[in-house]
Amino acid sequence: MNPVHIAGVGMTKFGKSPLSLAEMICQAAEQALNKSSVQDIDALYIGAMNPEEFTGDSNIASRVAEALGLIGIPAMRVETASSAGAGALMTGFQAIASGCYRRILVLAGEKMTHLSTSATTRILAKVLDNQERQCGATMPALAAMIAEKYRQEFRLSQSRLENMLSAVAVKNHANGSRNPVAQFQQPITRETYFASKFVATPLRLYDCAPITDGAAAVILTSLPTDVRVAGIGQGTGPVSLREREIFTSFPATRAAAARAYQMAGIAPRDIDFAEVHDAFTPFEIITTEDLGFFPAGKGGEAVLDGKTAFDGPLPVNATGGLKARGHPVGASGLAQVVEAAKQLRGELPSLRAFFRGLTQSTGGLGTNNLVTILERSDAPPVQDAAPPFPFPAAALPQKKTALRSASDEGTIETFTIVYVTPDGFLPPLALALIRDQHGRLLMAQGEDSANLKIGREVSIRRIDDLYLFTVKGHLQAMQDSFMRLLRRATASPAADEGAADNKL
Amino acid sequence: MNPVHIAGVGMTKFGKSPLSLAEMICQAAEQALNKSSVQDIDALYIGAMNPEEFTGDSNIASRVAEALGLIGIPAMRVETASSAGAGALMTGFQAIASGCYRRILVLAGEKMTHLSTSATTRILAKVLDNQERQCGATMPALAAMIAEKYRQEFRLSQSRLENMLSAVAVKNHANGSRNPVAQFQQPITRETYFASKFVATPLRLYDCAPITDGAAAVILTSLPTDVRVAGIGQGTGPVSLREREIFTSFPATRAAAARAYQMAGIAPRDIDFAEVHDAFTPFEIITTEDLGFFPAGKGGEAVLDGKTAFDGPLPVNATGGLKARGHPVGASGLAQVVEAAKQLRGELPSLRAFFRGLTQSTGGLGTNNLVTILERSDAPPVQDAAPPFPFPAAALPQKKTALRSASDEGTIETFTIVYVTPDGFLPPLALALIRDQHGRLLMAQGEDSANLKIGREVSIRRIDDLYLFTVKGHLQAMQDSFMRLLRRATASPAADEGAADNKL
Repeated sequence: MNPVHIAGVGMTKFGKSPLSLAEMICQAAEQALNKSSVQDIDALYIGAMNPEEFTGDSNIASRVAEALGLIGIPAMRVETASSAGAGALMTGFQAIASGCYRRILVLAGEKMTHLSTSATTRILAKVLDNQERQCGATMPALAAMIAEKYRQEFRLSQSRLENMLSAVAVKNHANGSRNPVAQFQQPITRETYFASKFVATPLRLYDCAPITDGAAAVILTSLPTDVRVAGIGQGTGPVSLREREIFTSFPATRAAAARAYQMAGIAPRDIDFAEVHDAFTPFEIITTEDLGFFPAGKGGEAVLDGKTAFDGPLPVNATGGLKARGHPVGASGLAQVVEAAKQLRGELPSLRAFFRGLTQSTGGLGTNNLVTILERSDAPPVQDAAPPFPFPAAALPQKKTALRSASDEGTIETFTIVYVTPDGFLPPLALALIRDQHGRLLMAQGEDSANLKIGREVSIRRIDDLYLFTVKGHLQAMQDSFMRLLRRATASPAADEGAADNKL
Repeated sequence: MNPVHIAGVGMTKFGKSPLSLAEMICQAAEQALNKSSVQDIDALYIGAMNPEEFTGDSNIASRVAEALGLIGIPAMRVETASSAGAGALMTGFQAIASGCYRRILVLAGEKMTHLSTSATTRILAKVLDNQERQCGATMPALAAMIAEKYRQEFRLSQSRLENMLSAVAVKNHANGSRNPVAQFQQPITRETYFASKFVATPLRLYDCAPITDGAAAVILTSLPTDVRVAGIGQGTGPVSLREREIFTSFPATRAAAARAYQMAGIAPRDIDFAEVHDAFTPFEIITTEDLGFFPAGKGGEAVLDGKTAFDGPLPVNATGGLKARGHPVGASGLAQVVEAAKQLRGELPSLRAFFRGLTQSTGGLGTNNLVTILERSDAPPVQDAAPPFPFPAAALPQKKTALRSASDEGTIETFTIVYVTPDGFLPPLALALIRDQHGRLLMAQGEDSANLKIGREVSIRRIDDLYLFTVKGHLQAMQDSFMRLLRRATASPAADEGAADNKL
C-alpha cells in the first residue's frame, strides 16, 4: 500500500455564509492549494450529504471541478450521510494508496442555514428509518433516547447525567472560543446550559450541534510530508433504533476504530488528542468509550474529571467540536481532519506538542462511521505489542429480523419527550422504543407523556403503520403480571400454542 | 497496484419494477453472490444518482448494507450524475488495488418509473447548468443541439444525419430483443423510428433512452478469476454547453479513455466489443469516435456500414445499450460492466469469442465520464507498441470565463426546437446557443421558432437572467453586415476602443 500524506489543508469560517456551496468548497480548496507545494492535482474527491435537497445542486463533483478551473480531471462525489467528508477522505486515501493517483484534492461542504429549521430537520431526518420517522422521530429525539438508555444502563441519576452532558457542552464551547473559524466564539456557563430549553429530554438546546454552512479541503499526496494518514477505517450499523442489540455504544465506530488502529499499528493509549462527532453531547461520551479511551460507562466521568479538557491528558474536541465549531453535515468529517492536521503542525493553540491525533465521524444515527489516525513524521515509535483492539461482535453481519405484528403489551426500552417536533407533530411528543412480548423492538408514540420510565409496562395499539402506547397504572400493571403468571401456570401446552398463533 | 478481478455479476430485469430501490439493489447483489465463490464481502460501494429526490432515500449505503444482512462492513455511496454506477466500480477498483480490501461488492441502482415524466425530467435536468436550465433546456434538448452541431460540422444533410441516428436506434432495439433483461424486447423498424414524434429536433422519441427502474451488482476481488479489470479511467468536462470549446466530442470521454487504455497497455484496435452510453443516439456515434474506434465525423457512417452491428467487426451495444436495455441512471454504468463480463464469459448470444471489452458511461451532458476495460484471463497478448491514445487538449484544466453582459447581436452556434418541454414552457420552444460579438457563448430562447440555422445572425435581448433571440430577416442581416464592415473600415482606433468599452 502506497503511503498517504497530507500536503495542505484549508477550511472556510463555519457559520452562516453568503457564498454558494460550490463557492465555499472552492474557497477551502484554494486555501489548501495556496499553502501547499502540491499544485498539479490528479483528481478530486468531494463529500456532501444532500446538496440535492439542501441547495438544489446535482452533479456537484463536476460543478466544483469546473468552478476550480480543474475541469478535465476525475471528480468523484462520495456520501455516507453526515460523515460524507470523512468518506471522501477515505476514498481519496484508497485512490492514492492504490497508486492510481499521486495528488488528490479531497473536498467537503454543505450549505444549510438558508433553510428554515423545520426544513433542515426534515432533510436531516431522512437518514433515519422510515417507520421511526413516521412516529415523529428526529435525529435529536433518537439521540435523546440513546442518552436516556445510557443513564439507565450505567445507573446514573438524572442530575449526574445532566452534569456530564453539560460538562461536554461547556468544555466544547470554551474550546470553540479559542478557534477563529468556529461558529460560536463565546464560552457558555453551566447556568446558560441549564437555562436552555429541552429539545428532547434529556437533551437541551446546548446538547445539539447547530445548523451551519461550511467547507473543508485536504490535499493528499504519495510523497512524504510532515503528517501522514497512518490509519483509516469505516464501519456501519443498523439504520433503525429498533434493529439494535446495543444502544449505548455504536458498533460502527468500534469497527472503524479496530480497522484504523490495526492499519496504524497502534492502540488507543498512543493517541494524543481526538476530534470526535459531538453532534449531540452524549455522542461524545459514548464515542470516547467506543474508541477505547475509557471503559464503557466511564466516558462521562472522564469529562467531569477534566481528562478530555483542553489541558487534560487526552484533549477531545479541543477545537470546539461540532458543538461549537458548527456542523455543516457533509463537511464536518473532513473539517476534523483539517483541524487535527493543524494541531499536529502546532498551528493551533495547545499546551504541548502532539504526535498522533484521531478523528471520528458519525453518519446518521451512528450508522456509517469513520475513524482516521494522523501521525507526525517525527512521531516517536509506539510501545511494542499494542493489544489488538477488540472488533465488536455486534458489528458483524447480521440478518434483519423479519417483520411481524407486535403483541399488545410490552415494556419501555428507552424513551424521550420531544419539545422541538417535526411539522405535523405537536409538542410535547412522547416517543418510546418498546420491547413487546415477542422480544421485538418497535418505535411507538405515547398517547400521554406522563409517567415514562425505562422498564415500565405499556399497552400497545396499532393504527395503520403507527404504533401507540399507554403506560399502565401501577395497579393495572401488577394485575396484568399476576394474570399472565396465573395463565402460564395453568394453561395446557396446546392452549399455549394456540395463544401464540393468535399473536402472529 | 494489486490486480482487480471480477468474481460475479448480477442485475435485475430492467423496466418498471414493483420493488423499492433497496430491494432491487439487494436482488442484483444476491444474484451476484449466488453465482460467485466469493462470499465474505469486505466492503460495499454503491452508485446512485439521486435517490434523495427520485425515491426519498437518504443514507442509501447503510440502508442497503442493512437490507443485505451485511451491516457492520464499510459501505460507501458514490455519485457522478448518470455515470454513478461506473463511479462506484472505479472507487471499488481503487479500494482493492490499494490493498485495503480483498473482496468488494459494487452495487448500483435507480428507481424512476413511479414518477411522472415531467417530474423525472425535472430531476434529471438538475445536473445541467442553472442558466441553461432556466431557458427551458433539458437533457434531450442539449443532446439535440449537439446532434445539430455534429451535422453542420461534418457537413451532413439532414436526411443523412437522420439515417445515422435511426440506424443506431434500429440496431440497439434489435440487440435488445435478444437480451432477456432489456426493458424493450421488440425490434423496431426504420418506419417506426421515422413515425415517432420529435422530442427536440433532430431527436425523436426513439433517439432517447427510456425511464427505467433497475439495479446491477459486480463482485471485485484481488484473487485471480477468468475476467479482470485491465484498465479504468475517469474524466470531466464543462457542465454547461456555453463553456465548451468543442461540441461534437466529449473531452471527458477522451480523457477517461486515455487513462484506461494506458493502464491496460492497449489501444482502441485491441477492443473486441464495447458497451457505450447511448442515452441519446448521437452520443453513441460521438462516443465511438472519442474512444478512438473511428475518426471524428466517421462514427455515423460506421453504424450505417454495419461496423458496430451485432455481427460486425466491433459490436457496439450488442446487449441493446441504454436505448433498449433501459436507463436507470445510476445503474447503467455498472449494468454495462455486468453485461460486458457476461459477454466475455460467453454467457450472452454472440457470433464469436471476445477477449477484451470496453464500457463507457456518461455523467450529465458528457460531464463526468468513465471508461472501463475488461479482459479475459486467457486473452492473447496485444500487438507490441500500442500507439499512445492522444490525451485531449480540451480536457486540460481551464479557467471558466468571467461572466459579462452579452452584446446585442450574434450568430447561432447550434439550436433545437423542443417539443417535449419542461413544466412552465410551451412547445414548440426554440433554444439556441448564440455566439455574441465578444465571441462569448450564451444559451437563449427564441422569440420565434422559424428560420433557425447554424450561422444565422440574430439579435439578442435580455430580460432579467433570460436571453431571448430573434433571427434577422435576410435583408436585415445583409444590411447589418454591410453597415458593420463600413463602420469598421471608417472608424478611428480610438472610436473603436470606445465602442468596445460600451459593450462591457
